[in-house]
Amino acid sequence: MTQTFSFSLHGTDGRARTGTVHTPRGDIRTPAFMPVGTAATVKAMMPESVRATGADILLGNTYHLMLRPTAERVARLGGLHKFMNWDRPILTDSGGFQVMSLGALRKLTEEGVTFKSHIDGSKHHLTPERSMEIQRLLGSDIVMCFDECPALPADRARIRESMELSMRWAKRSRDAFGDRPGHALFGIQQGGLEEDLRAESAEALRGIEFDGYAVGGLAVGEGQEAMFSCLDFAPEQLPKDKPRYLMGVGKPDDLVGAVKRGIDMFDCVLPSRSGRTGQAFTRRGVVNIKNARHMDDPRPLDAECTCPACSNYSRAYLHHVFRSQEILSSMLLTWHNLHYYQELMAAMRAAIASGTFADFETGFHAARAQGDIEPV
Amino acid sequence: MTQTFSFSLHGTDGRARTGTVHTPRGDIRTPAFMPVGTAATVKAMMPESVRATGADILLGNTYHLMLRPTAERVARLGGLHKFMNWDRPILTDSGGFQVMSLGALRKLTEEGVTFKSHIDGSKHHLTPERSMEIQRLLGSDIVMCFDECPALPADRARIRESMELSMRWAKRSRDAFGDRPGHALFGIQQGGLEEDLRAESAEALRGIEFDGYAVGGLAVGEGQEAMFSCLDFAPEQLPKDKPRYLMGVGKPDDLVGAVKRGIDMFDCVLPSRSGRTGQAFTRRGVVNIKNARHMDDPRPLDAECTCPACSNYSRAYLHHVFRSQEILSSMLLTWHNLHYYQELMAAMRAAIASGTFADFETGFHAARAQGDIEPV
Ligand SMILES: [Zn+2]
Ligand SMILES: [Zn+2]
Repeated sequence: MTQTFSFSLHGTDGRARTGTVHTPRGDIRTPAFMPVGTAATVKAMMPESVRATGADILLGNTYHLMLRPTAERVARLGGLHKFMNWDRPILTDSGGFQVMSLGALRKLTEEGVTFKSHIDGSKHHLTPERSMEIQRLLGSDIVMCFDECPALPADRARIRESMELSMRWAKRSRDAFGDRPGHALFGIQQGGLEEDLRAESAEALRGIEFDGYAVGGLAVGEGQEAMFSCLDFAPEQLPKDKPRYLMGVGKPDDLVGAVKRGIDMFDCVLPSRSGRTGQAFTRRGVVNIKNARHMDDPRPLDAECTCPACSNYSRAYLHHVFRSQEILSSMLLTWHNLHYYQELMAAMRAAIASGTFADFETGFHAARAQGDIEPV
Repeated sequence: MTQTFSFSLHGTDGRARTGTVHTPRGDIRTPAFMPVGTAATVKAMMPESVRATGADILLGNTYHLMLRPTAERVARLGGLHKFMNWDRPILTDSGGFQVMSLGALRKLTEEGVTFKSHIDGSKHHLTPERSMEIQRLLGSDIVMCFDECPALPADRARIRESMELSMRWAKRSRDAFGDRPGHALFGIQQGGLEEDLRAESAEALRGIEFDGYAVGGLAVGEGQEAMFSCLDFAPEQLPKDKPRYLMGVGKPDDLVGAVKRGIDMFDCVLPSRSGRTGQAFTRRGVVNIKNARHMDDPRPLDAECTCPACSNYSRAYLHHVFRSQEILSSMLLTWHNLHYYQELMAAMRAAIASGTFADFETGFHAARAQGDIEPV
């Protein structure tokens, strides 16, 4: 196993790429989807079950973990991997995005952000240096720069100002991160939907040099069409020989469109959150399991899926446990959704490797256009 | 595998017994603890995980299942085993006990009970005949007679009247159950804490003939001492060559005291319910994981336990996920509690087989008397 962090690009098909991120804790096959383990657990899943879905890497949230149980406590207990029983790679966000979402509860300066905890109202200060320290204490394998971004739409001046601040914070993050063999630091491109600002941001990040690059500031309300327009140029502005990560995205069709445009890594709470609200992602689109049409349906959620929810249970049963507010409902649907997301990534990797991504994309949309199976 | 239902007694130690209940769906090692799967799921557990704890049989609730998803729907979907993905034996209660607990919402006559659903207020009628029909539709392996019992304390006249009604209902249950090879019907002894009424009840049940006999009407508020006093005579009044089941019991020390007095089977929601409220059963007593003393504790919940919660996580982590209201908290603590209960039953079976039950009992109480490990 490697002692350093590296990225190998195995093949491309159009702008879509497939490769491997090598880390001392294991390989990450790209395009990769990272399930979100907000508070040191992927909600409703045992970590061995998350691995069984095919996940190579998890995402942890700096904001949540710094407040509870705190980064210092996690470090005393041996780090996040040991704490949560996941020995493969973990990427942590910087805390920036979630702190910005606090709105009136936070105050932004050149130095960093002061905010109040949503748990107990206690006051905290987060800077690029502190974010690097927290992510180091957690034991993160892939550390994200501390950055800032406005919700879209925002005016160009606000977007430029925010991007420039994020680039100064990127430099401070790089300096604070230091030299940590086997651990990676990713820079985050900002600039909203503006091609020239994205280019300036990419240029600034290239100048600092990172182990990977994220496209930040998307999936913040701009809609899929605007996001894809931005992805028509943003990934290409970043180095070809490093992984590219689109933060916080997305729905299955978002992933397909983003991979097509050169993205290698994703994270999103959608598959796990939807699992808890009775929404299942299938080859034929979204199934709402609470719908009465499933009440007497002996068929599986998705006949082609090999997850436990589809292998061992009927739609009628999944409907029953959802309606009965049983924890098993969240467990089974989360498992299914994460399994579906990982199968989707695997199918895209195979299609890129064999140069058939266009066919894959056509088939993907055609299956969804059919809609769910007819009621019994 | 056998096609009929039978019971083999392998050994006794004092009044404690160990044996095997043979069923077409698999053997049940006794003394046995049956986890409760109220609404066709043992809350927060996958059925394969329940099996991994060592459970040979589950209990299903007629009252809950008849209301949702309904017995007819379960039958159309292939029966409860298939519906909930558990192919080993299932015992169903008769619905009687839970209907009686509805208080003002139900009306009792010689014919049966009329009650309103706690889910939607709809009106239902439950009789011995309908209870047998529901349990047949569910596909239950061990069917319980429809009976009635008063909360204790109750006056002797009320206890006698209720017992006599239950015995008439036992006869009607037997007649309605009919001849179903491979399926068992258990009679339920009533009579409160009164030795002569218990004897009369046992005599009536022996006259009807059942495949097993339950001690009913205990664990309804009388306290452990009174319950044990009753168990000093009640099990011995029942046939020696059939399994004896103490319904709705109990805490670990209740199980030990009841096994000592000749009980073979138990069910209780306590290990699963406690798992969801942060209470863990260990060799050294109950641990309340929400207590702040666990916040920095790197040690497992129970160092001798081999369940996933104890093998892979610290008390600090279990405390964290409980405080963060994560579903994983319920999953891990329920798993641990059910694992502990099954290990306790296995230890009792081994002790009885080797004639060392008295030593086992001494050791059991001595470990608990130590209390939990010292804080870090
Ligand atoms: Zn599935
Ligand atoms: Zn354990």
